Amino acid sequence: MSVTAAQGFSAAGIAAGIKANGNPDLALVVNHGPRLTAAGVFTSNRVKAAPVHWSEQVLRGGTVSAVVLNSGGANACTGPRGFQDTHATAEKVAAVLGGEHNAGEIAVASTGLIGVLLPMDKLLPGIESAAEALTADGGEAAAVAIKTTDTVHKTATVSHAAGWTVGGMAKGAGMLAPGLATMLVVLTTDADLDSATLDEALRDATRTTFDRVDSDGCMSTNDTVLLLASGASGVDPAYDEFAEAVRTVCDDLARQLIGDAEGASKDIRIEVVNAASEDDAVEVGRSIARNNLLKCAIHGEDPNWGRVLSAIGTTRAAFDPDRLNVAINGIWVCKNGSVGEDRDLVSMKGREVRITADLATGSESAVIWANDLTADYVHENSAYSS
Amino acid sequence: MSVTAAQGFSAAGIAAGIKANGNPDLALVVNHGPRLTAAGVFTSNRVKAAPVHWSEQVLRGGTVSAVVLNSGGANACTGPRGFQDTHATAEKVAAVLGGEHNAGEIAVASTGLIGVLLPMDKLLPGIESAAEALTADGGEAAAVAIKTTDTVHKTATVSHAAGWTVGGMAKGAGMLAPGLATMLVVLTTDADLDSATLDEALRDATRTTFDRVDSDGCMSTNDTVLLLASGASGVDPAYDEFAEAVRTVCDDLARQLIGDAEGASKDIRIEVVNAASEDDAVEVGRSIARNNLLKCAIHGEDPNWGRVLSAIGTTRAAFDPDRLNVAINGIWVCKNGSVGEDRDLVSMKGREVRITADLATGSESAVIWANDLTADYVHENSAYSS
Repeated sequence: MSVTAAQGFSAAGIAAGIKANGNPDLALVVNHGPRLTAAGVFTSNRVKAAPVHWSEQVLRGGTVSAVVLNSGGANACTGPRGFQDTHATAEKVAAVLGGEHNAGEIAVASTGLIGVLLPMDKLLPGIESAAEALTADGGEAAAVAIKTTDTVHKTATVSHAAGWTVGGMAKGAGMLAPGLATMLVVLTTDADLDSATLDEALRDATRTTFDRVDSDGCMSTNDTVLLLASGASGVDPAYDEFAEAVRTVCDDLARQLIGDAEGASKDIRIEVVNAASEDDAVEVGRSIARNNLLKCAIHGEDPNWGRVLSAIGTTRAAFDPDRLNVAINGIWVCKNGSVGEDRDLVSMKGREVRITADLATGSESAVIWANDLTADYVHENSAYSS
Repeated sequence: MSVTAAQGFSAAGIAAGIKANGNPDLALVVNHGPRLTAAGVFTSNRVKAAPVHWSEQVLRGGTVSAVVLNSGGANACTGPRGFQDTHATAEKVAAVLGGEHNAGEIAVASTGLIGVLLPMDKLLPGIESAAEALTADGGEAAAVAIKTTDTVHKTATVSHAAGWTVGGMAKGAGMLAPGLATMLVVLTTDADLDSATLDEALRDATRTTFDRVDSDGCMSTNDTVLLLASGASGVDPAYDEFAEAVRTVCDDLARQLIGDAEGASKDIRIEVVNAASEDDAVEVGRSIARNNLLKCAIHGEDPNWGRVLSAIGTTRAAFDPDRLNVAINGIWVCKNGSVGEDRDLVSMKGREVRITADLATGSESAVIWANDLTADYVHENSAYSS
C-alpha cells in the first residue's frame, strides 16, 4: 500500500524528535528505478515555504531519486536560514543514500507550524535512522510520519491488470483550500513513463481533485504533490488509463482529507450544475464552500438555502437570481430564486451533505468538497501553537 | 439621538407581531421637511431582497418622505410575491401618513431570515400603530425595533456649531462583510442639501467605513444605508464639513457593529500600510480579515503571524514575500518575511487586537475591521433559523 505499493520504491517513517510528543515525524521515500522520472505541483500561495522553493527547483529537472518529508515544523517564513536548512536536509539525504544520489534530485517537504526553524540537530541524525529503516513495505510507516493534526493516515492504491500500480500517501487536516488543499502528497508508480507525461497526468488529476477541496478557505504555504515513477514494471501504459489511475488515487486521498478535516462533523459535497462555464461553476462552488454562515447552518443540520443564494450572489458567474435552484440532500428547497419544496423534508443526519446549485444558464458543472464550521474547529485552531 | 437628533424628523418603533417573541420589530422614520432629499447605498450582492429592489428605485428619484423598516424577516428570495409585499408596505405607509405622501417616495428595508414571506396580516396593521406612535424623540425606539441578533441598539450623532446635525441608527450583528456590512442604517440630517450632495457624501463615507467592516466574510442580500435631509436647520453647510460629519457618524456606527458582532470576543483592527495602492491595501486587509485560522488564533490570544502571511500570500497585491513585516498589538513579530520580535511580548488580553501588515512596497494604506471566530459564533449561527 501507500508509496511502496508500486515496485521499485522503499520507504520509512520514524520519530526523529522534531515533534515534542515523540510521535513519528520523518519520512523518507526512495526511488530505486530503473527510471527516476517525476512531476510536482505546488501551492499557489505567493508566500511559499523554503522546501517548496527547493523542490520546485528540483522538479524542474524532472528527476527525483528520493523525497524526505517532515512533520512538526513547516519551515515557512524562516528566511535564508530556513532555505539553508532545506538545502542541508537534501545534502544529508544524498550523502546517507550514497551511490549516484545528489542533492539536486532530492525533493524536500515540511509541514507544521509556520515561522519556526526546524531543529536540525534532530532532523539530520533522523535522516540516518530513516535510511536504515528503509524497506519495500515501509509505505504505511511513511504515511504515519507525515501526520500533523490528522487523526488517521491516508493512503490509496490503484493496480492495473497490465501489471503497473499507482499508490500514494497524503496528510492534511486543516488549512485546506484551493490552489491545492493544504497538504503533502507523494504518489509513486512503477509505470515506465517520462517526466512530461507524469506532469500532464498529475496536473490533470489535481485540477479536479485536490484543487477542489476547500475545507476552511485557508491556503497553505507548503502544499506539495509529487508523483515519482520507477519504471520497474517495465510497462508503458496508455496515457488515458494511467491518467485515470492517478486521478482515482488523488480523488480517494482528497476525499480522505475532507473526511478527516479538523473539527469537522460534516463533509459537504457542493455540485454546481448548468453553469455557463466550468470556471463559473468552480467560482460559485468555492463561494458556497467558504460561507461561514452556511457552514454553521450545516453543522446545525439546518437546510438554510438562503445562505447558499447569498453566497452565489457574491460571485461574477453568469446567472439570473430569479432562476436559481438549490437542492439540499436531493430536496429542491429553492426554486426559481424563491421558496421551493418544504425544508422539513430535508434530512441532514448523515456525515455527508449534498448541496446542488443549479445556475440554469449553461451545461457546465463542477464539484467542490468542503466541511462544516464547528466549535471543535475553533477550539483546535485557537490552541494549535500554544 | 438617533434619527430624530436632527430637526424635521419623527420616528417610532413598535412590536407588530412579526417576531414570534413579541419584541419590537417595526420602525418608521418620517421626514417633515421642508426638504425631502435623500441618498442611498445598497448591497452589492447580486441576489437582492425585494425591499432593496424597491428602495433602489425610490432613491433614483432623490426624494424620500419616509422609511419603514422591519426586523423578523428579510423578505429576500421570496419571488414576485415578496416584491408585491414590499410595494403594499410602501402603499400602506403613504396611505396612513396621508397628505402628499406617495408610495414612490417611501423607502422600505427588511432584515431577518432569508426565504420567508413576511406576515403581512401583522405588518400592515403595525404600520398604523407605528404612525400613531410617531414622535420627535422616537429615534431610540426606532433603533430598538430594527435589531435582530444585535444585543444592543446602535445610534450616533454629530452636531455642528453652525446649527445642523447628522444622526443615525444601525442594526447588524452577523453576515457582516464587504459591499456594505450586512446591516440597515438610516441617517438623517437637518442640513439644507440637495440629493446629489447627499449621495456624494454618503458614498464617500460608506467607502471607508461600512465597506471596510468584514466581521464574517458573508455579504447580505439586504444591506441598506439611507441618508435623509429635512433642511429644517436652514443651514447649507460647507461640503467638507458635512461629509466629515457623515463619515464620523458612519464610522461610529460601523465600529458599534463590530463591537456587537455575533459571538465575537475580539474586535480586530487590521491596518495595511506601505501598499502600492489603496486597492492593494484593501484586498490584503480583507484576505487577512477572512482567514478562519487566523480568526481562531486571535480568539485563542495566539499571535500566530504565520497565518497573516499565508493570507497575504493569496492576494494579487504587489509585495515581496521576503520584505513583509507584521506587528500584532505593536510587536513586530514578523520582519522581512521571517521571525521578528519575540511573540511572547505580545499581549492580547483586551477585546481590541491590532494587526499591522507592512507590504513595504508603496505608501498607501487602509483599515479593515473584523472579528474573531468563536464557538459562540458557530452556536449562534447553527441555531438561527431552527
